[in-house]
Amino acid sequence: MPHEKVLDDISHRRYNPLNGSWLLVSPHRTKRPWQGQQEAPSKNQLPEYDPKCYLCPGNQRAQGDANPQYQNTFAFVNDYSAVKEEQQDYSPDPKTEDVASLLLQAQPVTGRCYVLTFSPKHDTTLADMRAQEILPVIETWTRIYASHLSSSHPLKTEAVRAVQDIPANADGEVDPPKHQLRYMQIFENKGAAMGCSNPHPHCQIWTTSTLPEEPGKELIQMAKYKQEHDGRHLLGDYVKLEVEKKERVVWQNDSFLVVCPWWAIWPFEVIVIAKRHVRALVDLTDDERLQFAEAIQEVTRRYDNLFETNFPYSSGIHQAPLDCTEDEAKASWFHMHFYPPLLRSATVRKFLVGYELMAEPQRDITPEQAAAKLRDCGGELYRKSL
Amino acid sequence: MPHEKVLDDISHRRYNPLNGSWLLVSPHRTKRPWQGQQEAPSKNQLPEYDPKCYLCPGNQRAQGDANPQYQNTFAFVNDYSAVKEEQQDYSPDPKTEDVASLLLQAQPVTGRCYVLTFSPKHDTTLADMRAQEILPVIETWTRIYASHLSSSHPLKTEAVRAVQDIPANADGEVDPPKHQLRYMQIFENKGAAMGCSNPHPHCQIWTTSTLPEEPGKELIQMAKYKQEHDGRHLLGDYVKLEVEKKERVVWQNDSFLVVCPWWAIWPFEVIVIAKRHVRALVDLTDDERLQFAEAIQEVTRRYDNLFETNFPYSSGIHQAPLDCTEDEAKASWFHMHFYPPLLRSATVRKFLVGYELMAEPQRDITPEQAAAKLRDCGGELYRKSL
Ligand SMILES: [Zn+2]
Ligand SMILES: [Zn+2]
Repeated sequence: MPHEKVLDDISHRRYNPLNGSWLLVSPHRTKRPWQGQQEAPSKNQLPEYDPKCYLCPGNQRAQGDANPQYQNTFAFVNDYSAVKEEQQDYSPDPKTEDVASLLLQAQPVTGRCYVLTFSPKHDTTLADMRAQEILPVIETWTRIYASHLSSSHPLKTEAVRAVQDIPANADGEVDPPKHQLRYMQIFENKGAAMGCSNPHPHCQIWTTSTLPEEPGKELIQMAKYKQEHDGRHLLGDYVKLEVEKKERVVWQNDSFLVVCPWWAIWPFEVIVIAKRHVRALVDLTDDERLQFAEAIQEVTRRYDNLFETNFPYSSGIHQAPLDCTEDEAKASWFHMHFYPPLLRSATVRKFLVGYELMAEPQRDITPEQAAAKLRDCGGELYRKSL
Repeated sequence: MPHEKVLDDISHRRYNPLNGSWLLVSPHRTKRPWQGQQEAPSKNQLPEYDPKCYLCPGNQRAQGDANPQYQNTFAFVNDYSAVKEEQQDYSPDPKTEDVASLLLQAQPVTGRCYVLTFSPKHDTTLADMRAQEILPVIETWTRIYASHLSSSHPLKTEAVRAVQDIPANADGEVDPPKHQLRYMQIFENKGAAMGCSNPHPHCQIWTTSTLPEEPGKELIQMAKYKQEHDGRHLLGDYVKLEVEKKERVVWQNDSFLVVCPWWAIWPFEVIVIAKRHVRALVDLTDDERLQFAEAIQEVTRRYDNLFETNFPYSSGIHQAPLDCTEDEAKASWFHMHFYPPLLRSATVRKFLVGYELMAEPQRDITPEQAAAKLRDCGGELYRKSL
């Protein structure tokens, strides 16, 4: 029995070395038998084209142009962006009192937000798409990331090569921004449980003049680990460790590892990690892009199979900033987080409330138990046979 | 026009000095006119006594005893606690490889979790109760906190005095735990939107052998501020500043300030802060306990009045740890957070998803706009006249 087996039975905290925080794990609360599926498997009732959807090809957007008849992906600037490229200046009043300058700190943020569709089909999801069909999404992410890099970026050469290798796709083209931005956050919000009102498969890409909290904390932790451990990488070491330990591994191919991380907060949280030192999308080779598409397909299909439902989640990619030092690029390690709220069935969800907001995140089922369940549902997408 | 007025129009980040993190504010997205109430005001349809409720007086709990015919509050150990007092030992394997000891860190956590009812009435809420009726809740919190303090605690004398001053209430009595614990987190989860299934007014009290993340980060930030600013307190300075600036103040009495903090994440988040240096519940005088009850009454009634609904929220008290050094007690400053998810009406809520999970919390309406609305709805509880 591995030494850590006792952690299946006792309350404990686990440390997240990637962002430097702890969470509470209460496995004794899951002693009731696993009941499996409680509801009938959900079918897909959506039309392939919805005339009212602002993301379907050919449709008019409320405050924008008409969408083209795109074939794969389509990117456009969000009509309701959380940040804008141009706005009034703001700098803290230099005459301000000492205490206000400490306790009422603000920084202006500029940037640009995009919406990117994954497919012209209103009724599909990443779980329904083959890896070959997900590939154009990754190619478009790579193109957009490359076009936003600073001119002196450590990955500029890789960016030029990557864009040359990728087949042209006019619908995924966006103009580079006027001012150099600091970070690009690619994220998907899927399902009504995540507050997403439009089922048309899409993600958002927010680029900002500031480095946001979460990737910022991770970058600091990764740089610190590298410095303290002879230049070794936190996620490089972690990949090796998990491949060896096996118990948290959900799936892997030559280039990517899918695990329920030791420090997972969400019941079926997974992280997709590059096995070699990939700093950002532009580092990926043709073959690695396809292997990344495979990894995304495996995660999303297993999610849907788990409770035979269209599984909600938020996912996001962390990689090197758009404008960064040589050291920051070196410390970056490409990975993708999936945070799904479902717990025991299509209708029983976890809420991040109460103790979790006031004190510390908490989970019942262990990451090892979650990984075992996700390993076991790798078959064909359940709704293909409904 | 105050210098910061430009922040009403531009995207910016604000710094939370209490936990050391930033959030994104996008006020330009609220330019649409305020639409006010969209739904009919909600009545209270609940019975005063529900024979199926496990918190009503006299009822039998699933895994526990029968509840007494209590008059005010009633405390009992949670039948499904997230932590237990006794469990197997765990200490990391000293022979373990270097990398696993860095990346797979765990700590055992023991403790005890209580449920505390606020009233025998199934159909009431803090918003319905008068300050005099909320007072026994605060008295019970104080008693329970006092009975869990370590024998050498810097506030032991204050604890003895406080308990002597409080009228006896056998129903709120709990035995002290066998082993000294580190922190007591008092929190309320109210409403189905917060995943709370039982409307009977109650809170939870989780005591643990470890100091949880959130109060732990706050304690570090407060101690740092104190050290760097001639022994002045972060929240002491903040109270003075906000009383002066006025724009984020919702309500105040002699002893407590209610503000939408500069760094609020939730649309109508507020923080209730002691005006003088109160380190924990046991520092409060008789009069201050009543003034704290008044503050809680003002917050919860205004919340319900805002959208004429039974307003959901998570709230929680941060104070000195149960077992702490003299310095930790000195750095602590008593306050209570309220995190409500509603945004524009009883049915439009904020989701903490996507960008907020992957990158950084984000809000549209500014704390100044939120405070103005909460100042304006201080009248009688809306449902009294339905
Ligand atoms: Zn990350
Ligand atoms: Zn606090």
